[in-house]
Amino acid sequence: MKTRAAVAFEAGKPLEVIEVDLEGPRAGEVLVEVMATGICHTDAFTLSGDDPEGAFPAILGHEGAGIVREIGPGVTSLKPGDHVIPLYTPECRECNFCLNPKTNLCGAIRETQGRGVMPDGSSRFSLDGKPILHYMGCSTFSNFTVLPEIALAKVRDDAPFDKICYIGCGVTTGIGAVVYRAKVEAGSNVVVFGLGGIGLNVIQGARMVGASKIIGVDLNPDKRELAAKFGMTDFINPAEVDNVVEAILDLTGGGADYSFECIGNVNVMRQALECCHKGWGESYIIGVAGAGQEISTRPFQLVTGRSWHGVAFGGARGRTDVPTIVDWYMDGKINIDDLITHTMPLAEINKGFDLMHGGESIRSVVIY
Amino acid sequence: MKTRAAVAFEAGKPLEVIEVDLEGPRAGEVLVEVMATGICHTDAFTLSGDDPEGAFPAILGHEGAGIVREIGPGVTSLKPGDHVIPLYTPECRECNFCLNPKTNLCGAIRETQGRGVMPDGSSRFSLDGKPILHYMGCSTFSNFTVLPEIALAKVRDDAPFDKICYIGCGVTTGIGAVVYRAKVEAGSNVVVFGLGGIGLNVIQGARMVGASKIIGVDLNPDKRELAAKFGMTDFINPAEVDNVVEAILDLTGGGADYSFECIGNVNVMRQALECCHKGWGESYIIGVAGAGQEISTRPFQLVTGRSWHGVAFGGARGRTDVPTIVDWYMDGKINIDDLITHTMPLAEINKGFDLMHGGESIRSVVIY
Repeated sequence: MKTRAAVAFEAGKPLEVIEVDLEGPRAGEVLVEVMATGICHTDAFTLSGDDPEGAFPAILGHEGAGIVREIGPGVTSLKPGDHVIPLYTPECRECNFCLNPKTNLCGAIRETQGRGVMPDGSSRFSLDGKPILHYMGCSTFSNFTVLPEIALAKVRDDAPFDKICYIGCGVTTGIGAVVYRAKVEAGSNVVVFGLGGIGLNVIQGARMVGASKIIGVDLNPDKRELAAKFGMTDFINPAEVDNVVEAILDLTGGGADYSFECIGNVNVMRQALECCHKGWGESYIIGVAGAGQEISTRPFQLVTGRSWHGVAFGGARGRTDVPTIVDWYMDGKINIDDLITHTMPLAEINKGFDLMHGGESIRSVVIY
Repeated sequence: MKTRAAVAFEAGKPLEVIEVDLEGPRAGEVLVEVMATGICHTDAFTLSGDDPEGAFPAILGHEGAGIVREIGPGVTSLKPGDHVIPLYTPECRECNFCLNPKTNLCGAIRETQGRGVMPDGSSRFSLDGKPILHYMGCSTFSNFTVLPEIALAKVRDDAPFDKICYIGCGVTTGIGAVVYRAKVEAGSNVVVFGLGGIGLNVIQGARMVGASKIIGVDLNPDKRELAAKFGMTDFINPAEVDNVVEAILDLTGGGADYSFECIGNVNVMRQALECCHKGWGESYIIGVAGAGQEISTRPFQLVTGRSWHGVAFGGARGRTDVPTIVDWYMDGKINIDDLITHTMPLAEINKGFDLMHGGESIRSVVIY
């Protein structure tokens, strides 16, 4: 079949919205009509050429929502018409990782996914007979795409695609880090470094589970108002205090019970650890640091009871947890609407990338 | 009263065994006749002058066992004749830390203990009217010593002092890290870096809880035999492999479930983290690094599911957990006898310090 898609032909160039060829689903695969997709910083990172694992030509996009249109042989958990969210972290429920309750990092198709191909080693996308690569196992910047069955979360039919697509990455990454990975308890003091989309989702996750103090840290005072709307109780601008770690120790009476780094800055990661409470404070790295950068601290920080963690896709098991987060949205427990600042048709997808370069907390969604 | 004690008058000099004056217990304090005390590397570290917090003159020693001889006003949990183990990490059961089940780092008397005095700010030891400092709240290199009630674990009467004194530090530090802090599950793969006294106790803790592979890592092949006796299943000499992390990943089929650093070397701490299994491996720092040294790694190690921790006094709550460890010894579940390599009277305590400088896995115990 043919599908319209935004193709990244090479790094640093705008996407080209064209018709490409899409082969139907093979065994264990599913054809999905993408109804909406967010544009994430990770897409921009890969498109920029800075991602050492980025490969071209490819169809980017990994934060989508859509409808199953066709299933390949052997697919049993989905049928045409089902509403789904693609999962860049799949959940096979059979591998060494899925069978260990401590992790969400399914290993079933990691290797082929990293190479931009389907589990059988080939691509379903092509142009003039030449293959175009998949991206993060999703390729949601295409009106139709093919995914493995294990990389699709079935969600309720009444949820709006243009909002729940954000659960495919940012919402789950932030809220999940609080709920599934750190398991923050009611009454905890939580510190969030970086009030972009991920940070705001960490904040609303902390509010949902009943955290007491929710302290946001950002150099941009303009982010204060929206963060407060999402549940932030206190704001610290590092430019306005002598020492951000000391300021947090003072404000919390000894340190954070939980901290989350949502920027990708290794110096901030250290502050996030060291602002934790002696004895029990836990720090979680969500942000992605530049290639080759390292974190460091004195081991005394750990020996006196702080611990250092990281989390990917919010620690969520996609097929199990993503439908639950969709429910939370539909029940009004979490706010997605105010996080989506721009919408556009696929033809204007490059505008969404341009908007990100301003440094604002924006989230663009492409509606097909 | 008078008591014989080994006094550290200044850094870098041998201890002097002399008679000193000891004031009886004040409110909340207990007079203990020390029956035996281990000599720990931490005592040697402070005596060397390298400990930036070391202060002199002081009576060192923190790994003892003895008998209550007199109680001060208000002491209710102990009576003369009770057998006790002094606790350099006390357990007041009332402070912010004791009331949080996630930590064992009681904060009740931390500040005065660090200054070498009793909780009221004064010392009970003196010579010719001039005060001599306490050390780690214990000062077990004295035939009689005074401690706060909250810094004494009451233990059974039939346990031999010359063995259970080691539970006051080394045994609990190693076994507790496995049992109380990491909570290693049966079937886990465990890696132990450094096969000195702490490492051997980590090994026997891992054996006690049913670990599968227990891999010891040490540059000294002579340590292999004793470690195997304590439960080590595999041995890796870093000098004999190209890359110790790769060797562990191979041997465990993906990495350690738990690793423990028992040396105090920041480069080994990094190896201990990076040999952990993706998704769930947990690394615990037990060793004490040199002043100002830092640990580092790529944040990717944490984002992909490894976590970095530290532990002091094995995560044990002294008054609660130390009596249990004494029971384990008396029940034959753990081996202390083979860890104690030398005994000597107090008059020969400096021999115990000399023995440590050879780099062997030795533990000397002074018997009063």
